[in-house]
Amino acid sequence: MEKYHMCPKFESAFELLGKRWTGLIIRTILNGQHRFSDIEEAIPNMSSRMLTERLKELDKEGIIVRKVYPETPVRIEYELTEKGLELENVMDEIQKWAEKWT
Amino acid sequence: MEKYHMCPKFESAFELLGKRWTGLIIRTILNGQHRFSDIEEAIPNMSSRMLTERLKELDKEGIIVRKVYPETPVRIEYELTEKGLELENVMDEIQKWAEKWT
Repeated sequence: MEKYHMCPKFESAFELLGKRWTGLIIRTILNGQHRFSDIEEAIPNMSSRMLTERLKELDKEGIIVRKVYPETPVRIEYELTEKGLELENVMDEIQKWAEKWT
Repeated sequence: MEKYHMCPKFESAFELLGKRWTGLIIRTILNGQHRFSDIEEAIPNMSSRMLTERLKELDKEGIIVRKVYPETPVRIEYELTEKGLELENVMDEIQKWAEKWT
């Protein structure tokens, strides 16, 4: 019998999305929270420092972009890229499963 | 504006599924690997000790069952419960996203 090996793409996607807080942050931005303070408030158990770190990682991975609007006071918003927006189906399936089973 | 808060069901599902190796183990069992040694072989970077620990957690969560077949030598297999099988859509969406973006 030929041995089965994990698809490396699936593995690396899971490594990214499975990191603590990452899924919740993406979900929160998908739900329309774009400012640091709003994302922070939506996930009360996560520290600000952790949110800063995760946002940097997601930016580096091309899942979000940090937009700076030169207003007074300056406005900074986090938006999902196309890569990030296409995680909506993943998040919806997790939500459906969670509603039923947790 | 009413403040948005993370759905606690989503949060706890993500906490469970996002744990390192858990998603890969579920995916591997969904793909038809039911024995400890076959699951282990499909995920080469994970230690046996970690696999043992994760299988216990998944059993406790009702996502898999450990079946003992009283043969000689005894045969032990890990099978997904209904709760576990219904994660297939989640895994498929992650796979689709991963194929496209990673």
